[in-house]
Amino acid sequence: MIGLTNYAGVMESLMNSAEEKQPSSPLTNSWAKKQESSKSQKPNGVGGFVLVHAGAGYHSESKAKEYKHVCKRACQRAVDQLKAGALAVEAVAAALVELEDSPFTNAGMGSNLNLSGEIECDASIMDGKSLHFGAVGALSGIRNPVMVANRLLSEAQKGKLSAGRIPPCFLVGRGAHDWAVSHGIPPCPSDKMATKFSLSAYKRNKRKMELAEKMDTGHNQTKKRRQSSENGNGSGCLDTVGAVVVDLEGNVAAAVSSGGLAMKHPGRVGQAAHYGCGCWAENACHMNSYSTAVSTSGCGEHLIRTMLARECSAAMQSEDAHQALLEAMQNKFIMEFLWSHTTESMCVGYMSAQDSKAKTHISRLPPGTVPGQSLAIEGGVCRLTGVVE
Amino acid sequence: MIGLTNYAGVMESLMNSAEEKQPSSPLTNSWAKKQESSKSQKPNGVGGFVLVHAGAGYHSESKAKEYKHVCKRACQRAVDQLKAGALAVEAVAAALVELEDSPFTNAGMGSNLNLSGEIECDASIMDGKSLHFGAVGALSGIRNPVMVANRLLSEAQKGKLSAGRIPPCFLVGRGAHDWAVSHGIPPCPSDKMATKFSLSAYKRNKRKMELAEKMDTGHNQTKKRRQSSENGNGSGCLDTVGAVVVDLEGNVAAAVSSGGLAMKHPGRVGQAAHYGCGCWAENACHMNSYSTAVSTSGCGEHLIRTMLARECSAAMQSEDAHQALLEAMQNKFIMEFLWSHTTESMCVGYMSAQDSKAKTHISRLPPGTVPGQSLAIEGGVCRLTGVVE
Repeated sequence: MIGLTNYAGVMESLMNSAEEKQPSSPLTNSWAKKQESSKSQKPNGVGGFVLVHAGAGYHSESKAKEYKHVCKRACQRAVDQLKAGALAVEAVAAALVELEDSPFTNAGMGSNLNLSGEIECDASIMDGKSLHFGAVGALSGIRNPVMVANRLLSEAQKGKLSAGRIPPCFLVGRGAHDWAVSHGIPPCPSDKMATKFSLSAYKRNKRKMELAEKMDTGHNQTKKRRQSSENGNGSGCLDTVGAVVVDLEGNVAAAVSSGGLAMKHPGRVGQAAHYGCGCWAENACHMNSYSTAVSTSGCGEHLIRTMLARECSAAMQSEDAHQALLEAMQNKFIMEFLWSHTTESMCVGYMSAQDSKAKTHISRLPPGTVPGQSLAIEGGVCRLTGVVE
Repeated sequence: MIGLTNYAGVMESLMNSAEEKQPSSPLTNSWAKKQESSKSQKPNGVGGFVLVHAGAGYHSESKAKEYKHVCKRACQRAVDQLKAGALAVEAVAAALVELEDSPFTNAGMGSNLNLSGEIECDASIMDGKSLHFGAVGALSGIRNPVMVANRLLSEAQKGKLSAGRIPPCFLVGRGAHDWAVSHGIPPCPSDKMATKFSLSAYKRNKRKMELAEKMDTGHNQTKKRRQSSENGNGSGCLDTVGAVVVDLEGNVAAAVSSGGLAMKHPGRVGQAAHYGCGCWAENACHMNSYSTAVSTSGCGEHLIRTMLARECSAAMQSEDAHQALLEAMQNKFIMEFLWSHTTESMCVGYMSAQDSKAKTHISRLPPGTVPGQSLAIEGGVCRLTGVVE
């Protein structure tokens, strides 16, 4: 989990309460942001900030440099967009494109291969201003799945189709591919999306699976299945990448993209495509005191069941402590960000519109701790300009 | 919306508060059920009950008999299963199969055709005992989509696959079809799933669409789109079918199935396949005083955004009035059920294990009211046997 707070008040470890409510949750990564409610104090240009993550999982020391580089590039892309006046939703999509284009992340190029040796991607994006949402699932042959999700979102904002038809917000499989191409997004041959790394991981996994199935033959398979390794999907795999952005007007947006689990069944859709599970973004309004945005990463099946992104968002809204702080301390726009994970490591990057370059960090569990049972929490503070005094 | 209450206490219109919270919601149909918390008083055999709906929308007088018949058959199938000792999740799947097999419902056989003239179905099922969930989206060539969702649920309950792989809970498109066939569910040629009625509706819609697009040509299309008919998907269309069951042990389960919007884009997935949106079922436990189950029907895109099924479930859990009633009046197991819709009509059926046959009803908006702006609420009471005195 990564989290970020942007509000009038002092910094506080706001996500702790959400953590405590989900002690056994498999969450490995999420992002949260708050900012002041849009009462009389709402400023123009509260800052502009992006936080990205390259997926929770295991980041080898040898590739650390690559992960940091891609996080930096993603931050820079988003900030460039923000400075050019883009809204949060456009900037977050730009950050995701950079993360997808990296052959080292499990999203877009270089994604995990499924059981049939194909790449099928999930992605979703949410605009905190309009609350519109776009998602694709099990999408093949498109280099940047997040662009299709973003296009679904923007097409839905245009209103109904001919003859009063409601535009889709979630498309899957072949239909999603054809819709993308018919909306000007170029197809990409599947073999150009696989990398040497993803192909060799596929062959390794395939052998492992065949061996495991050979061992099962002739035994009580159901029993065997229950007892099989808990860490089978663990080491070496990376999950969903994501980003959250606040733009110069204070709007928030969140997005996620994923190649899904290695060796998943064709057609399997994970949390990255699920409303309320992969990402959540909500501007402050009369119902919500804070703007919030969340992005999760981890095992899709578990994250779907916990509806983690939306749950975190709701937990933040009901935090009385923050309301009190808001009222007590006005006119100090401090943005807090934090990340938390239960996997071996997570690579994050962040950058505000005032920064000349992004900062990146690979967070690791303390030595001797057990992935899935231990939790690492780290974070920082950033003071934003453009504050109404 | 249809709702049902099964608890130790007197009947009360419990869903009103949930209604009031979502005044502009496009909900047209859902189902809710409560029963006593599993404290010391929990009986064995609290009854066994099923409530089904054949989809909200418009039910012509001429076909009223058919809709009632299919609801009756669906109720009977579920009760037969319950009497034979089946759990709620099996009984609810049996009811859905009957609803899907009817050529008059927009689910399974006779579903709406998409833009390409194909049938693509969504379905999901949730078991309130295990909280396991299974769903399929944009599934073609399978007669009973709910059977695939149910099989995903039961396979997931068996634990991990070989090499520690996590079993999928949500499959779409071709991958879902192939998974179903490899798990012994027979394929069904697409032309056998279309009916004379669905084919003629497709041709009519196609003409209407082409006409609307011709009128748009050369104009400001975006503006036109916003102004186009609000009722384009209204009359003549039926939505998601669904059912909720309580079994003899007091477990609950819910399921939904849908052919989706007529003329939808291929690959479009609606709320029937979305976790927390199409159906919800949750047995009473230490966290929840009531068992709840909900099934929604209506425009997928809106229902996804409201996460209606889960929202209703949560609203029921927080109802203090019911807790007070529970404490005040013990040992009276009265089941209340109600339905509510904003569409022109909705056909429901219900039956307890003590009934010799199902009751059915077509609920209609009062004369002179406007669909989408008016709400009909009706209901009844049923006293269950097997009560611990």
